[in-house]
Amino acid sequence: MKSDLPNLMRERGLDALVISCPDGLDAVNTAFAYFVGPVHVTNGHVVVKVKAEVGRRKDETGAASTSIPQLSAVLVHAPMERDEAAKTGLSLHSLGNYNMREIYAAAGGDRLAAQVEFTRRLLSDLDVSGRVGFYGVDQRGASFAFLNALADAGFVEVVTEYEDDVISTARRTKDAGEVAHIRQACRLTEQVIGATRDFLCGHRASGGTLIKTGGEPLTVGDVKAFIRLEEAKLGLDDPGCIFSVGRDAGVPHSAGTLTDVIRLGQTIIFDIFPRLPGGYYADITRTWCLGYAPDEVLQAYELVMQVHDQAEAMLDTRRPSWEYQEAACDLFEARGHQTTRQSPGITEGYVHTLGHGFGLAVHEAPSMRLKGLSSEDPLPAGTIITNEPGLYYPDQGWGVRIEDDYWLNPEGGAERLTECDRDLVIPL
Amino acid sequence: MKSDLPNLMRERGLDALVISCPDGLDAVNTAFAYFVGPVHVTNGHVVVKVKAEVGRRKDETGAASTSIPQLSAVLVHAPMERDEAAKTGLSLHSLGNYNMREIYAAAGGDRLAAQVEFTRRLLSDLDVSGRVGFYGVDQRGASFAFLNALADAGFVEVVTEYEDDVISTARRTKDAGEVAHIRQACRLTEQVIGATRDFLCGHRASGGTLIKTGGEPLTVGDVKAFIRLEEAKLGLDDPGCIFSVGRDAGVPHSAGTLTDVIRLGQTIIFDIFPRLPGGYYADITRTWCLGYAPDEVLQAYELVMQVHDQAEAMLDTRRPSWEYQEAACDLFEARGHQTTRQSPGITEGYVHTLGHGFGLAVHEAPSMRLKGLSSEDPLPAGTIITNEPGLYYPDQGWGVRIEDDYWLNPEGGAERLTECDRDLVIPL
Repeated sequence: MKSDLPNLMRERGLDALVISCPDGLDAVNTAFAYFVGPVHVTNGHVVVKVKAEVGRRKDETGAASTSIPQLSAVLVHAPMERDEAAKTGLSLHSLGNYNMREIYAAAGGDRLAAQVEFTRRLLSDLDVSGRVGFYGVDQRGASFAFLNALADAGFVEVVTEYEDDVISTARRTKDAGEVAHIRQACRLTEQVIGATRDFLCGHRASGGTLIKTGGEPLTVGDVKAFIRLEEAKLGLDDPGCIFSVGRDAGVPHSAGTLTDVIRLGQTIIFDIFPRLPGGYYADITRTWCLGYAPDEVLQAYELVMQVHDQAEAMLDTRRPSWEYQEAACDLFEARGHQTTRQSPGITEGYVHTLGHGFGLAVHEAPSMRLKGLSSEDPLPAGTIITNEPGLYYPDQGWGVRIEDDYWLNPEGGAERLTECDRDLVIPL
Repeated sequence: MKSDLPNLMRERGLDALVISCPDGLDAVNTAFAYFVGPVHVTNGHVVVKVKAEVGRRKDETGAASTSIPQLSAVLVHAPMERDEAAKTGLSLHSLGNYNMREIYAAAGGDRLAAQVEFTRRLLSDLDVSGRVGFYGVDQRGASFAFLNALADAGFVEVVTEYEDDVISTARRTKDAGEVAHIRQACRLTEQVIGATRDFLCGHRASGGTLIKTGGEPLTVGDVKAFIRLEEAKLGLDDPGCIFSVGRDAGVPHSAGTLTDVIRLGQTIIFDIFPRLPGGYYADITRTWCLGYAPDEVLQAYELVMQVHDQAEAMLDTRRPSWEYQEAACDLFEARGHQTTRQSPGITEGYVHTLGHGFGLAVHEAPSMRLKGLSSEDPLPAGTIITNEPGLYYPDQGWGVRIEDDYWLNPEGGAERLTECDRDLVIPL
């Protein structure tokens, strides 16, 4: 969590962090959003340092007990975004202090050299020197060219981390405020799931197919439009969802075919992962059969729930994180299903990973992968993670997945954040 | 446009392009979307080469006249995204061909080395060698570490371009299909603008403030919720909008204060820039005063429209692209307003750029900036660009901006794509 950053920076010898957001990339620039929050700052930089002065952590009696290092974070913003910048609560520094036209002219029109010179002036003004880590998303070519040019210029030591960078590492665990946001996202998402089930149940069936008032069949496109409106009503950002029927439900990331009709007895995989505006995600999957479920689907559902329950019961802050997926594969294989442990390219059986962290991104560390793909480290207290086993048989026209969200709380206990029922069959 | 890519690649000596989309960044990975289209492929790579065989361009009589190079594009996708991948129409190559667990193990757990080895195998399988350009968005640290490691490995020559890379350069102009999408986005956006005006007009005023049925004042938050629902009904992706009133309208990127009430005679800046799902944007701004407009706002509106008309009349594929902004500054300064030409940090007067290209991103090249900040090149035929002069006086409690969208068509003429009226005063 964010309060780990001072220690993480010290461990890695980082004097400062520069998290940049080029224009137009703010929607997915989660390292930037980690500091600015859900405010519409479309471009800028956050410069983070550890303050020399220290705060004091209070113990339960309220007495100051331990001194802890504090972060200072400055938001470098465009003048015309000063209002949004002010909403972040960060210290502000305006890009209006820099005359880019003069800087470009002095660089003879070389825009890369000009950007390096701008950065030199900015970091000097913010008293940044030493080992500096660079974060945020950008075009790969621009990152490579700029950071190499900056390293060559030599006024700071450019530090980059390929994976598990200092910010991602802090984000592996969530603090109480973040967990509250994720709980809220789960509650709102469950409202959408409930409304969608009611919407389906509000239709009559004819010839085994759901029918609209006008007599036309209800389509996946109709249902997705309904879901989109429900999300908009609740103020959720909609990055799309999976509502896939029959054969499509057998392909985990098939988003569904808009013209498909909804037939009784077919599996519907409804995987919905909206977020609070500019903020935290929820990620929930339910599998439904309208009216009745065929025997093979019912058996698959029961096995998936057995694997799901097994993982839930295993959740513990001392267990190596690969044990969950290995145990899931053990159980699926023992019951005669193929898994990606046997062959990574399979398209039938258990074809994906058991669970992934989420937060400001819908997929983030840690995850529950196979040994050799996953860290040996246990899931730490503060982890937010999904548990989502599934079975897929597209050629037989079905798939099953049940996904819930969990928090490993500070006491090391696992708390399920998702509460909506997991019934397979929806009576009409 | 995309058909320029073979020549652009030849001019820059590029044998292949690798456009990558790391998981979770697809929403803004416009270089990737340029090839995969509006399909929910959440991670993968597009590998582009110029085919040895050539197609033939037909002249108006249908006779084959000129041979032209053709692109081949392969989408490298996760097995469980094979359905979405197939919807792109690209050739497909599955990541299931690579056993990442074995590759990690062979690399002794060094994930960067493993990624380089995976890339070596992939490019070898796709017969890619020589000078290869790398594109798409990623974390800056990951890009820097990976591309440097790849360059060191030496099996291809890593080419990066800081700005105006080969894909951005192709995207500076739009083909007929893209223009059709942008027209559609403009039409739908204008429907939202019209519905929002009707929504405002559907309220009565009391004491100079719009009032809801229950007697409570209508707020900016209420209006934004309405806009969000209208966008969802029309299937538009909503990245947020600006609906700012009074003083906030005087700060160009103030998104508006949700608790603000709507008073007669105050300026409302409504800047809305949704997009077709996963596709092309529109970008339109209207300034409204409900009931009446104060004299100073009316005068500012008339001057803004004069600058707007001047830019529209100037649009031409032979004029250096900085002339538009310089002419706008000339006119504003002659009428006593400050401009950023005089001082980049000003917060009153004309404080931004006249216009910007857009397409798959809401801001893209080319733009109409000051001399020294803009290219000397004219706007080419195929340009899609905004024209959006404004005047801002936050301390006086108002701002005015009018933004329309234009296409410089293949004949070099300028066509306005936005048709909704630009009336300042909305009678109640």
